[in-house]
Amino acid sequence: MIIALLTDFGTRDSYVGMLKGVLLSHCPTATLVDLGHEIPPQDILRGALSLLDSARYLPAATVTLAVVDPGVGSSRRILAAQLETKYYVAPDNGLLDPLLQNSPAPKVVSVARPDLYLPHISNTFQGRDLMAPVAAALAKGEPLASLGKEITDWQRLPLPCPVIGSGEIVGEILYADNFGNLPSNITVETIQKAKIPLDAGSIIIDNRARGRMVSSYAEAEPDSLCGIINSASRLEIAVPRANAAARLQYTQGQKLTVRLIR
Amino acid sequence: MIIALLTDFGTRDSYVGMLKGVLLSHCPTATLVDLGHEIPPQDILRGALSLLDSARYLPAATVTLAVVDPGVGSSRRILAAQLETKYYVAPDNGLLDPLLQNSPAPKVVSVARPDLYLPHISNTFQGRDLMAPVAAALAKGEPLASLGKEITDWQRLPLPCPVIGSGEIVGEILYADNFGNLPSNITVETIQKAKIPLDAGSIIIDNRARGRMVSSYAEAEPDSLCGIINSASRLEIAVPRANAAARLQYTQGQKLTVRLIR
Amino acid sequence: MIIALLTDFGTRDSYVGMLKGVLLSHCPTATLVDLGHEIPPQDILRGALSLLDSARYLPAATVTLAVVDPGVGSSRRILAAQLETKYYVAPDNGLLDPLLQNSPAPKVVSVARPDLYLPHISNTFQGRDLMAPVAAALAKGEPLASLGKEITDWQRLPLPCPVIGSGEIVGEILYADNFGNLPSNITVETIQKAKIPLDAGSIIIDNRARGRMVSSYAEAEPDSLCGIINSASRLEIAVPRANAAARLQYTQGQKLTVRLIR
Repeated sequence: MIIALLTDFGTRDSYVGMLKGVLLSHCPTATLVDLGHEIPPQDILRGALSLLDSARYLPAATVTLAVVDPGVGSSRRILAAQLETKYYVAPDNGLLDPLLQNSPAPKVVSVARPDLYLPHISNTFQGRDLMAPVAAALAKGEPLASLGKEITDWQRLPLPCPVIGSGEIVGEILYADNFGNLPSNITVETIQKAKIPLDAGSIIIDNRARGRMVSSYAEAEPDSLCGIINSASRLEIAVPRANAAARLQYTQGQKLTVRLIR
Repeated sequence: MIIALLTDFGTRDSYVGMLKGVLLSHCPTATLVDLGHEIPPQDILRGALSLLDSARYLPAATVTLAVVDPGVGSSRRILAAQLETKYYVAPDNGLLDPLLQNSPAPKVVSVARPDLYLPHISNTFQGRDLMAPVAAALAKGEPLASLGKEITDWQRLPLPCPVIGSGEIVGEILYADNFGNLPSNITVETIQKAKIPLDAGSIIIDNRARGRMVSSYAEAEPDSLCGIINSASRLEIAVPRANAAARLQYTQGQKLTVRLIR
Repeated sequence: MIIALLTDFGTRDSYVGMLKGVLLSHCPTATLVDLGHEIPPQDILRGALSLLDSARYLPAATVTLAVVDPGVGSSRRILAAQLETKYYVAPDNGLLDPLLQNSPAPKVVSVARPDLYLPHISNTFQGRDLMAPVAAALAKGEPLASLGKEITDWQRLPLPCPVIGSGEIVGEILYADNFGNLPSNITVETIQKAKIPLDAGSIIIDNRARGRMVSSYAEAEPDSLCGIINSASRLEIAVPRANAAARLQYTQGQKLTVRLIR
């Protein structure tokens, strides 16, 4: 049984150790797989996109425990979900929403199983006290339906929607990745719907910079901005072998418009 | 057999790879669990607090190899310790002390088993050359007593002590965590000893900022400093959904006083 | 079967999750071991040195998947290699070269096994689409020879060569490690060839700073620059318990000369 972990805990504090300790104490045969603990603190959107984009690659039966939880200690619920053959446990704050929206028939329950929780429940770390034991139970074969009542009103996290115009799409940058590449909310699907050829056309960023679409970084002109379909099927702004975020002075949270024109 | 790893190596260099290579070569069936490799370089106190706070959550029989070792190559000893059902290997520099002080009957040996060490012992990486083979031996079932002579004079690392006054406690901030929350040396135990109700009272930081005690982040006034009992049972200064360290311009190592008043 | 991972992906994005998902889907019994995902983006030299220095410590049969791949989507090849009992999969961009140069009889193939690859191959993430399935196949016992044609003209990545003069060696700093220590290209082998005693002599950095060789950090004068043979058998510049890179205002990529004189 694989339990995959995605958090915003960083790895300087004891939080990751506590979480793994609880998981392994409750499910000693689990294989823990770190997806990463460096989601920017409390950045639900970034965590949600990471889950959304990696989900299809995880093996069947994987339980992913995702904790980005600014509302810890409030009345926000804990969710457990099944998407086809894979399981997720996370706070009900939008973190799972893009993934659930993208799934044909997700089953989601609002977790209510005090018998599984740690005896003492803190108000600041329910990833450890509530969610980890639930994830361990799922990994040990506990049926989803036994964890709580099925719900459909989980917290939504609408991604900004690209707008299709005549021969163009207007979208926006979602974040800067580790390389300074800038994935946008314009997906292959949207581009196909707008009937723009995937590897042609130009991109205009905020009316201040311009580049052409390429099909690989290698094909771009040296040191120049370009648009490319990235590995998550999104239009991404890049400067091959350099940092597009730095080039465009993009800072996280800034609104940066991308127009794709035929 | 689980071998848990806590170091200040970072993950840009080859150190983590070398360490894991030695562990897996000596104990191929071990499951390695990263507690984290981002303890600030040579910050023994931060490593010690991480070990102290996560220890109770680790499963029985876990061997934790902790390496924050500014004295590498000096005559400082190597310790192996058993605390109830769990094992630790670390340099004798205080890294284990808070954990040992907190344990009812720790058994600690000064490791002397040249037969276990790597054939070539460097003066700059004894985590790899001495400690990893010893941790692997413990994981394979080597009894603690066979690793060296029992000692009680391990290096102490006294945590700063909070002072209980009349209707107040004066303590200090230990560090800033990944969220900018500021755990202090005032524990639930101290607060109970001072007969201050846990979720009442006010905190005064360095005579320059003030907040009230809350029982969850959600309960605090928006954007305001508050005190809260954190997941390691410490009084912590926080600004819910924001960064208290930035708000207070706290930098690591700075002395920052916290008064809890009834 | 151990699959060890070294990348420059960071752990904020979905890349590590996708990679691990593919590996575990294709080889469910693999044990994944993170060597680290924080190689500076696209820093092939840093990745190559990390592989070179940690290789000897990894257990037999380990498959290391190393992805630092600025040329992704170009015509650069994918390599699979066997060095004695260990396996490597990486892009053909020099990342494996120092390791291969250092090995008595490496076997290297240019991978050509479309039947193994993911059905859809992106132009931006071939670590996931091509290399991960190949690494998984090796871990499951696929013979190296079946993966492609043997080659000897893999991309070279010559490390800068130290120059032996009369009673001195002139080399240069390779990078700053997590502690601010500065490993150079002067190895124990070179020092022995130059007939300079290992723990004697002085170092001169860029004609602007000076220190003496010591055999352990503990032996150095407090707060002073020194030279030491590090755990990868390289001459390294250090300031014990402090940060030599900061002291010398070294920034990555800067040329910094080190002279070792008798």
